[in-house]
Amino acid sequence: MKYARFRDPAGAVRRGTVDGDTISFGRNEYDMDAVQLLPPCEPSKIVCIGRNYAAHAEELGNEVPDRPLLFLKPPNTLAAQGDTITAPAGTERLEVEAELGVVIGEQCRDVPAERAMDVVAGYTCVDDVSNRDDQRQEQNWVRGKAFDGAAPIGPVLATPDEVPDDAGVRSYINGEQAQSGSLSQLIFDVPTLIAEITSYLTLEPGDVIATGTPEGVTPLADGDEVAIEIDGVGRLTHSVRWP
Amino acid sequence: MKYARFRDPAGAVRRGTVDGDTISFGRNEYDMDAVQLLPPCEPSKIVCIGRNYAAHAEELGNEVPDRPLLFLKPPNTLAAQGDTITAPAGTERLEVEAELGVVIGEQCRDVPAERAMDVVAGYTCVDDVSNRDDQRQEQNWVRGKAFDGAAPIGPVLATPDEVPDDAGVRSYINGEQAQSGSLSQLIFDVPTLIAEITSYLTLEPGDVIATGTPEGVTPLADGDEVAIEIDGVGRLTHSVRWP
Repeated sequence: MKYARFRDPAGAVRRGTVDGDTISFGRNEYDMDAVQLLPPCEPSKIVCIGRNYAAHAEELGNEVPDRPLLFLKPPNTLAAQGDTITAPAGTERLEVEAELGVVIGEQCRDVPAERAMDVVAGYTCVDDVSNRDDQRQEQNWVRGKAFDGAAPIGPVLATPDEVPDDAGVRSYINGEQAQSGSLSQLIFDVPTLIAEITSYLTLEPGDVIATGTPEGVTPLADGDEVAIEIDGVGRLTHSVRWP
Repeated sequence: MKYARFRDPAGAVRRGTVDGDTISFGRNEYDMDAVQLLPPCEPSKIVCIGRNYAAHAEELGNEVPDRPLLFLKPPNTLAAQGDTITAPAGTERLEVEAELGVVIGEQCRDVPAERAMDVVAGYTCVDDVSNRDDQRQEQNWVRGKAFDGAAPIGPVLATPDEVPDDAGVRSYINGEQAQSGSLSQLIFDVPTLIAEITSYLTLEPGDVIATGTPEGVTPLADGDEVAIEIDGVGRLTHSVRWP
């Protein structure tokens, strides 16, 4: 099953089921292009994983970590399907990072890996947009990863049964493929990540874990159109501009 | 003026004015000890500043940064007056960090320093509780700084006129003074921090900036009682336990 959060023509926020390009809510059907899509959940935090694909760690000259590298994106980073992200003033190098987003379904803490899938509501696409100019200079990646709009997410939430274990994760810039990987390449898998994170932090319904990005990260330019595609989930699109 | 958020005897959440130990809401008066105090605001994020007192940077063997060192605490870190914080499993060294918390009053972005005080609702006490075991190993301080309960905050919000420019910032462990500093020692002052943060991130009403801690950080032990005191604001107390 796939779900979309959207604003209906009367302005009300709804959560409908998605079949192809049609969203159904109650007895109403909407064309997906005719409504305003919202992020598929309302995270109180996005917990992101760095260097979770060996080939990506390598391309940035980093070692593969011995436990998940964690960082945070607060709610100001959220962006939706079709949004245009504005680069922070003074930054030159924004890069796309296609990632599987795990949407949490219930409040949880200290979840063992073998029961971790019980707290997963579903999957979505995330672009972990990264401002490398600042990231490279920072102890904590706040200017680099937590600026407004740095987390486009969507367009739908797909239940786990929709997404194969080896689903492809790809990004495209102006239609040209930039990244390509498979969920089977994750160094730390979804249950391991949930167990590790919840041994320190309570996760809330709607919180998102961004599971890391495969190799091929590519710099963006003013006006670029970005697409993040995950097999079984769908295609998230957004654009970028420089102020 | 000072304000407290609290749960009244009927369970309703209220925001009252504080005079001494009395909270007034409408025509009702409550003894502060007789109601459940809540964090004085509901932050969507806490933006924290590291190494913002020269003597503290020195005691941890760090250089004074040339721009504010930022890190994040999400809402799961919130704790209130009187709460007991549980150390994350496997950690040994928790430390107290007394800090002035700046509570934001309105949604804002790209605020110039000369107008920054316009977006400040007031000040509060924050304990930036730090788990050094993990912090020392992390690129981003998530396990080290963002575990549940890592941000006790309160007990009140004091408007800026209540707090002198050279207000003392102190921490006590079991009644014994651990840290002592003055707001006049901040390397980056409040307007500078607001300008820097809002050049990247939108701040929301209730968001908090934790402005850094003076020297004297001290390890905590099971059962310790902590107090954070800021002249003109008040005294935040909490305890810690090991599981």
